[in-house]
Amino acid sequence: MIQQLGLIGCGLIGGSVALALKAAGTVRHVVGYSPSPTTTERARALGVIDTAAESALRAISGADVVLIAVPVAATERTFKTIRELLPPGVLVMDVGSTKRDVVDAARRVLRERVTQFVPAHPIAGKELSGVEHADALLFQGKRAILTPLPQTDATLLTKAEAIWRACGAEVRRMTPEAHDDAFAAVSHLPHLIAFAYFASILQQKEADEFLALAGPGFRDFTRIAASDPAIWRDILVSNREQVLAQSTRFRGALDVLERTMRDTQGEALEALISGVSQARSHWRLNKR
Amino acid sequence: MIQQLGLIGCGLIGGSVALALKAAGTVRHVVGYSPSPTTTERARALGVIDTAAESALRAISGADVVLIAVPVAATERTFKTIRELLPPGVLVMDVGSTKRDVVDAARRVLRERVTQFVPAHPIAGKELSGVEHADALLFQGKRAILTPLPQTDATLLTKAEAIWRACGAEVRRMTPEAHDDAFAAVSHLPHLIAFAYFASILQQKEADEFLALAGPGFRDFTRIAASDPAIWRDILVSNREQVLAQSTRFRGALDVLERTMRDTQGEALEALISGVSQARSHWRLNKR
Repeated sequence: MIQQLGLIGCGLIGGSVALALKAAGTVRHVVGYSPSPTTTERARALGVIDTAAESALRAISGADVVLIAVPVAATERTFKTIRELLPPGVLVMDVGSTKRDVVDAARRVLRERVTQFVPAHPIAGKELSGVEHADALLFQGKRAILTPLPQTDATLLTKAEAIWRACGAEVRRMTPEAHDDAFAAVSHLPHLIAFAYFASILQQKEADEFLALAGPGFRDFTRIAASDPAIWRDILVSNREQVLAQSTRFRGALDVLERTMRDTQGEALEALISGVSQARSHWRLNKR
Repeated sequence: MIQQLGLIGCGLIGGSVALALKAAGTVRHVVGYSPSPTTTERARALGVIDTAAESALRAISGADVVLIAVPVAATERTFKTIRELLPPGVLVMDVGSTKRDVVDAARRVLRERVTQFVPAHPIAGKELSGVEHADALLFQGKRAILTPLPQTDATLLTKAEAIWRACGAEVRRMTPEAHDDAFAAVSHLPHLIAFAYFASILQQKEADEFLALAGPGFRDFTRIAASDPAIWRDILVSNREQVLAQSTRFRGALDVLERTMRDTQGEALEALISGVSQARSHWRLNKR
């Protein structure tokens, strides 16, 4: 049982963790802070947090668990703010979509307190951001990746795992490096492609006509293009090298397909598509 | 009311049209043919067609409406098969995802009978192909694009529109050229990108690990990569020039985003993503 959760960042993810832990009866009291007082107040009004704090420091005061749920680029700043007043034994977690940079920042800023930090990345989200879309069921059946360091406190790591399980997530451990490589491939590059594809449509003079004709395939393919700009700016910049490497691989595969289309090699093209189509048909979300 | 529908190609789309027209009480009898006797027999066993024909010619014999629901590349061959025995006054439609090539083939092969041909493209589908996935509601609330020629018989065009409306679709007319340009942009390129992206994942030695970690965003982004290989081979080859032109635009937009990531211009990158994210958030399927 968490006596007091200090929540820094009352957005979709932070708010959903608070609601999930409340629904599970795993937290007694949530003190929340967001840079915008309006957001903090809305979180309180919606019952996502119990007490609105006027600063990050106030939010963590008296907390036994601190959750930092801010865009990745604001994580280091948040570490700096809370470091001085962070008592020993308090668990600190983040929820960022990249882990190498967050772990580096934690090492740099938290220093000996880095043992209290458990880097976390819940694989869940919505295209709708903001606390008003926070949802106690957001993590149900989803994965939560933890990327502990060699010096991470074992008791706090176990506590972190219990918290994510209480939210309904299946917990998995990885190194920060393996995490960032994998998510560059299966999440960050798809977002970059979806942003670029949608931009290329918008740039055409027939954009309105095209968009009026687009069907369900387009809808699903571009759903992630509606994602939060500040969050994705941070992810793409912080995991840049891995994303660009994946993009190079993607362009290579696109080159091959286009060459095959140009050669009008119907059979070769069908064979290429067939391999992909079968693999995708067999893929299942969260398959063990 | 259709007295007898001659269905050539008892797959997902052809089967769904038959079921939708039956559900609407708009067709009295469906005679179906597929190159594979097993498929034809399955269509009959499932009640999608009433009579299994042994050839395309038998399927159209006595029909007042003929629906050609075969992969685009098989359309010309089908025209050749049925031309000699196609009586005047019988409506012929296709359901192909490209229209320029189908119209060219109709002009070439059907000659004076081309007035009876109404090219059609219902904007609906599933990643699951085959008659066992045929669904009377597949076209409900979806669009059906008709691309008539100047010489198309006006009465048959009206009849074609009524048929698609009976299937639940909203009918829209376009030229074959405008159709192919628009769908290269909003459907064919997304499929090509999804095939290429998924292929680039499969080519990596960590593919299994990556795929095990992929989340809901990946699921939706790659859904169309499971599409039918034969159908998409034909579409990509037959609309090649337009698809490649759209791909060039897309690569240009990807270049810009990657350059901005490399320059670590957080604000510029956020502005680019923000424009896309807002536009995608406002987009709605089938918005008038």
